[in-house]
Amino acid sequence: MSIESASHSNDRAGNLGVTVTPEDDFAQWYQDIVQKAQLAENGPVRGTMVVRPYAWRIWELMQGFLDEMFKETGHENAYFPLLIPQSYITREADHIEGFAPELWTVTQGGGKDLEEPAVIRPTSETVIGEMMSKWIQTHRDLPLLLNQWANVMRWERRPRLFLRTSEFNWQEGHTAHVDKADAMEETLRMLDVYETFAVRDMAVPVVKGEKTPSERFPGAENTYTIEGMMRDGKALQSGTSHYLGTKFAEAFDITYQSRENQRELCHTTSWGVSTRLIGAVIMAHGDAKGLVLPPRIASHQVVFVPVMAHKAPEVADEADRLAKELKAAGVRAHVDHRDQKPGFKFNDWELKGVPLRIEIGPRDLEAGVVTIAQRLGHDDEQGNPIKDAVPTGELVAHVTDRLVAYHDFLLQRALDFREANTKQVDNWDDFVAQVKTGWASVLYDGTEETEQKIKEATSATPRCIPSDFPAEDGACFVTGAPSAFGKRVIFGRSY
Amino acid sequence: MSIESASHSNDRAGNLGVTVTPEDDFAQWYQDIVQKAQLAENGPVRGTMVVRPYAWRIWELMQGFLDEMFKETGHENAYFPLLIPQSYITREADHIEGFAPELWTVTQGGGKDLEEPAVIRPTSETVIGEMMSKWIQTHRDLPLLLNQWANVMRWERRPRLFLRTSEFNWQEGHTAHVDKADAMEETLRMLDVYETFAVRDMAVPVVKGEKTPSERFPGAENTYTIEGMMRDGKALQSGTSHYLGTKFAEAFDITYQSRENQRELCHTTSWGVSTRLIGAVIMAHGDAKGLVLPPRIASHQVVFVPVMAHKAPEVADEADRLAKELKAAGVRAHVDHRDQKPGFKFNDWELKGVPLRIEIGPRDLEAGVVTIAQRLGHDDEQGNPIKDAVPTGELVAHVTDRLVAYHDFLLQRALDFREANTKQVDNWDDFVAQVKTGWASVLYDGTEETEQKIKEATSATPRCIPSDFPAEDGACFVTGAPSAFGKRVIFGRSY
Repeated sequence: MSIESASHSNDRAGNLGVTVTPEDDFAQWYQDIVQKAQLAENGPVRGTMVVRPYAWRIWELMQGFLDEMFKETGHENAYFPLLIPQSYITREADHIEGFAPELWTVTQGGGKDLEEPAVIRPTSETVIGEMMSKWIQTHRDLPLLLNQWANVMRWERRPRLFLRTSEFNWQEGHTAHVDKADAMEETLRMLDVYETFAVRDMAVPVVKGEKTPSERFPGAENTYTIEGMMRDGKALQSGTSHYLGTKFAEAFDITYQSRENQRELCHTTSWGVSTRLIGAVIMAHGDAKGLVLPPRIASHQVVFVPVMAHKAPEVADEADRLAKELKAAGVRAHVDHRDQKPGFKFNDWELKGVPLRIEIGPRDLEAGVVTIAQRLGHDDEQGNPIKDAVPTGELVAHVTDRLVAYHDFLLQRALDFREANTKQVDNWDDFVAQVKTGWASVLYDGTEETEQKIKEATSATPRCIPSDFPAEDGACFVTGAPSAFGKRVIFGRSY
Repeated sequence: MSIESASHSNDRAGNLGVTVTPEDDFAQWYQDIVQKAQLAENGPVRGTMVVRPYAWRIWELMQGFLDEMFKETGHENAYFPLLIPQSYITREADHIEGFAPELWTVTQGGGKDLEEPAVIRPTSETVIGEMMSKWIQTHRDLPLLLNQWANVMRWERRPRLFLRTSEFNWQEGHTAHVDKADAMEETLRMLDVYETFAVRDMAVPVVKGEKTPSERFPGAENTYTIEGMMRDGKALQSGTSHYLGTKFAEAFDITYQSRENQRELCHTTSWGVSTRLIGAVIMAHGDAKGLVLPPRIASHQVVFVPVMAHKAPEVADEADRLAKELKAAGVRAHVDHRDQKPGFKFNDWELKGVPLRIEIGPRDLEAGVVTIAQRLGHDDEQGNPIKDAVPTGELVAHVTDRLVAYHDFLLQRALDFREANTKQVDNWDDFVAQVKTGWASVLYDGTEETEQKIKEATSATPRCIPSDFPAEDGACFVTGAPSAFGKRVIFGRSY
């Protein structure tokens, strides 16, 4: 297997393992994990990314869960062109204003200059809008519920693997509806789908809410978001869902004939999540030993390490047999047959964040047990993993239960961390202190001036107006003016 | 559902159905099906394609089968950048000679000219070669077995939806090996995977063999292909697998340290299939009524049409209940609840090639049966589908069996057609006559001059040197010179 052999080379180069703790230098720690767990590396063209097999498998698992939910909620996948005529992208004023600085432009094809330059899609509202205007004739054609899995490109001044890359892979949902109520219901339904996915599959608790006007998607009437807290206390915007009103319908003539035989504008939505979610997983769960993968999206959920296999080949056979049993029960099990010392393998799979590691040696074989170690949360007082002996006959049930419990543990750990690092604050000094390491929940006047002042002083920005916050009014903690939005807003530094 | 509602609009526009038979005008018939079965349409930038949901679902099903086989044969998916520096693509001489006229070039990013123009990948040997050279250190890192699902772009002078589009979606496998034997084994293994897929999932019998030198992939030592016969007697190259020798290894310095501590060049392969396979399905199975989908890749395998549902709503409920039963048994069943006459729905699903259509009306309900019609191959003397009454209690077993039998029927039909339209010929006149409507199996001298002469006179080209043809030598049917390749070669016109 290439995953294994490549890590072997790392070992020979002597650079296995993370060099710093997340507490010491979070940015360097992140970079170490991405490189040493063989998740990704820079592509040759500025800001582009090579996603290596171990990380792409995580993305495939994410895609599977999301796609299933998209289909269950009535969406169909389609595929639209990578290249968009420059004239399309300029048709909606706010949209082009937002995206103009980020465009990659194709000027030649087949050795000749194109008549009209084309841009590589930064997002597909415009080209899909053009198609919707052809496909939608009457109210019976609505709602039109589409999704696309695709690559997009946006120029990045400060690229960072997974978090901000010039090219990234994502899904973009695009839907058209008869009216605002129906479109808004869709917008919020897909936000709920994202929340479910984050919690159920990524073990990342997210705060769900609306963006303030300054943080909206270019061309949106309302933008909703899920925000996760990373282990440095910063926020990662992990998915967004936009109610686009009739802006794109006006720009692309997306209309329908109503039951009353009137021509009406459609109300459209769009929503997306991207490979940045892999960055979320790294930063929400990782520790000084490396990556920590939640079981539902772990490339391998269980890795067997046969011990003394060179002297007792039957331990390798037993590992294969048990792995097969686990696979039949739906567990992603893998046997590490590499010609390496067990200690090397333990470190390697810790670095790669595998939930459960199972050792099996000649004595285990004799006793009819295997020895299980859990990546996180089951340690002795010295911080070393407690190893449990489990009878092989009980292995499938034990592993299945334990993966569920481990997911719950990771989710609770992330939730506890977020709660410990989120505070209501009502004055400037407390705010400044709080956003150094976490999130602040504040009443403010909702103006761009105040947001700008806060950002310049602290780098913190409004993350969202949480859906489940209670109604509350008061004075802005910066200006003293009446607070906006009728509730508190979460501020934090972000990626 | 958007699929349905959009076809409804077609109806209102009065353009439902195919306007010509494949016998009368195959090209127009193909275009009609692509448009009216709502498979695809032209994108705004020259030669690009919008793949609509009904066709994208077929591609998803194809991807599922292929990806499973790729994983079973030890491959891992990864993702490499869309943009390739111009300097990479020129590094292997044959490669750039072949692809130069087809490149799309990006010259600007973020509003500024790029330091070095980048090309949109026409295929990824070069950028993957660059990464392989970093990832491979020793023989223990080999074989490196990668695959990528991605979009690529190649300038097309005469674009045709699915068959030749400027942008298309495909998978590209890229592997590196210690020596020629191992790389050649891989090349042929993946050709076998493609053959299995074509026969088992697409019901398209293919001829498997090697391309003659003039038809090789730019940069390959050997190119292998699977070729399917379309219903106009032309060939469609449906998948290719290339042994690249050490050409790319030399250009990108892909080397490894051998067991004997020598630095050696890797031997690499690449192989791919694309959305052109959807074109193969249309042209290998379709008829005057429209698309004919083989069950394993059919978006819907079974569609229920409730009859008199407006007067007897219980028929719609029964259809829902039976569809649910079928779904639980793994059958892709769909209920057409549109407010349309049954006759319209029958035509619509015939046009869309659904294998089995199930009618259920009040009298069926009373008798405890449903009425099944099969898209093709079960007709009365007038050519109308024979409708079979099947007790609802036997429906799941009946449908499951029938889908398998229907697949076998389509495969045999395609095989019979191919055999009836393939002939051994040994003189020029017979050859000219044969390639007008089918394939000719010939002995020829293997020179480019002879191929050129044949092509100019007849448009036919060598499709492949079939793997399973017996050894045979003789005189070239054109020049009388000794024949090449030690066996017959298939010639035909192609897409």
